[in-house]
Amino acid sequence: MPADVISFARGAPSADILPRELVREAAARALESDWERALSYGTGRGHPGLCEWLAEFHGVDTSQVMIANGSLEAGVLLFERLVEPGDRVIVESPSYDRTLLLLHRLGAELTAVPLDADGINLSYLEETLELGPAPKFAHIIPTFHNPAGCTLSDEKRHRVLELAADNDLKIFEDDPYAEVYFEGHEPLPTMLSMDDAGRVIYASSFSKTVSPGVRVGYLVGPADDIAALAKRANENYISPNMLAESIVYELCVSGGLAENIDMVRHSLRERRDALVEALGELIPEAEFVVPGGGYFLWLDLADDVDSKELLAPAKDEGVAFVPGADFMLEGGASSLRLSFASVPAERVPEGVERLARALDRVRTAAAA
Amino acid sequence: MPADVISFARGAPSADILPRELVREAAARALESDWERALSYGTGRGHPGLCEWLAEFHGVDTSQVMIANGSLEAGVLLFERLVEPGDRVIVESPSYDRTLLLLHRLGAELTAVPLDADGINLSYLEETLELGPAPKFAHIIPTFHNPAGCTLSDEKRHRVLELAADNDLKIFEDDPYAEVYFEGHEPLPTMLSMDDAGRVIYASSFSKTVSPGVRVGYLVGPADDIAALAKRANENYISPNMLAESIVYELCVSGGLAENIDMVRHSLRERRDALVEALGELIPEAEFVVPGGGYFLWLDLADDVDSKELLAPAKDEGVAFVPGADFMLEGGASSLRLSFASVPAERVPEGVERLARALDRVRTAAAA
Repeated sequence: MPADVISFARGAPSADILPRELVREAAARALESDWERALSYGTGRGHPGLCEWLAEFHGVDTSQVMIANGSLEAGVLLFERLVEPGDRVIVESPSYDRTLLLLHRLGAELTAVPLDADGINLSYLEETLELGPAPKFAHIIPTFHNPAGCTLSDEKRHRVLELAADNDLKIFEDDPYAEVYFEGHEPLPTMLSMDDAGRVIYASSFSKTVSPGVRVGYLVGPADDIAALAKRANENYISPNMLAESIVYELCVSGGLAENIDMVRHSLRERRDALVEALGELIPEAEFVVPGGGYFLWLDLADDVDSKELLAPAKDEGVAFVPGADFMLEGGASSLRLSFASVPAERVPEGVERLARALDRVRTAAAA
Repeated sequence: MPADVISFARGAPSADILPRELVREAAARALESDWERALSYGTGRGHPGLCEWLAEFHGVDTSQVMIANGSLEAGVLLFERLVEPGDRVIVESPSYDRTLLLLHRLGAELTAVPLDADGINLSYLEETLELGPAPKFAHIIPTFHNPAGCTLSDEKRHRVLELAADNDLKIFEDDPYAEVYFEGHEPLPTMLSMDDAGRVIYASSFSKTVSPGVRVGYLVGPADDIAALAKRANENYISPNMLAESIVYELCVSGGLAENIDMVRHSLRERRDALVEALGELIPEAEFVVPGGGYFLWLDLADDVDSKELLAPAKDEGVAFVPGADFMLEGGASSLRLSFASVPAERVPEGVERLARALDRVRTAAAA
């Protein structure tokens, strides 16, 4: 087993693309100009300057924004508000494993709707809404999906909102990757921006655009929902991290955020390109949607291989991934998730070679 | 009404004693030497260096420590683990209002045990433990109590632990003020340090020794409890704020923390002294325990005044406080909490003059 595991498992940026200089400079400026807010208790909504910046960014009123210690914690607050044991919730298949865990923990009855290359399968979603009890909400990751790598098309975003209107359905639009696009154009409009009936609660984060360690995520939604969630946040932790939010705010207003996003897009596009090229050469039988941004590529192997049986030989070869079944209520056996955020581009071909060797070993063993 | 309200209401330091220079310097150093940990996801336990520092500080194994986004959030994790609706929990009377709220929210049946000048009333506690169903735990604020200002004596700490052993009772030792002592000697030993049976879970924080905006608190307790709580924390928010914890860690190891605590002790002692002197001169009929540290003084007015009726005239005079009843399940009508952390010493006499005038107005109105 090689000492240097190449890990496509972790949905986190490698250290070489963490913006240490930008954050150091922003911290110095924030603690010069904004020290009183950075060091004091805030409200459950978080840093007022950053709330205003986010409101402007999303074209909403400040009363519709709250910041939390990462968007996952914001999701927990929302789920605890909306979900009682036995409540039905629609999730995508595959979906983010931590979301599935949290909803299971609350006793939700999950209905999984499969994804197409352009996002959630609409006829399946329609059928799901026609049958069975009304769901509390649908959890949708519209852009550069984790784990599937696909993006919900503009047309489908509109259609999802129409279905939501027809069925009085709430949408939780979980969108942390939207800004990490590779193709040079603006991301697709959010469902939040298309919503005029208060049906969408939107979550995003600075984990991918600044860094995960700052733990700054946020929600945008109807003002009354946000007020109730901010009150609950205040009961639980008084205020989210004001120091980190002050530093992130400084990055937002100084242009450091935009500079960093450019760097992240460039680096991750190189990694994605290297991964797509190596997979095409070395594992040509596998199928995938080429992700237009984000962190993840979802690899469908041929049906003869169970990705959980691939784990041990992959470990022997010195490469890591997450089996597809971890992201599904059922199925996913012949799929796996590869994170290209965690592997520098020059290491990607070697990582895919190792994966291909592990695959050969599984197939050779099965043939024997 | 004066434009400049003097507020003894908020349990937070005034801006002039926030350590902006120290934190700015620590942030620069942390983002030089520790940037990778500061900017990356951690585990549910938080920053490993700070965990080690805290373990050494409390003389425990690192496996017994976890850091959270403030000690209140750590308490929420603990309460959600221990308390089912209908479970009995012992609290002090008065107690921290946010703790009472959180326990009520979980459906706990609270039994309030009164405080003496040297902490919880032991005969009342014994009687409580003899009668009724076994409590899940007792919540005790041993040092410079919020809101009561009193400190649990060394003898009583031992006796509480004996009672815990006799009754198989868990103790939640909620101790954020211990380091903010005024009298120049070391704080009393924690019940955690006396516990050899894994009955004590201890909480503290850097909110009072660094600043509230960093939102860094922690738990120390039995390794299996801490492991379960850290797992739950990881499910809820992946890791607490690594950037803020890296900066706090830098303050701990550089001596900046010790320097700041000295400054805070000095400033708050001046404020306490000014408050005690002004109360003795201007409201001599009121009774109180002189706090040996911390933020709070609990003022027992004569029985003729309801502190909620004092709120409106106090507002007219330009002074704020929190009525005692907010910290009690019942009673507290003739008491109020004064925070001296939030008022610079030179403003304290004017604040007490305003309070005395408000009291006169209530009494004059009652006599009329």
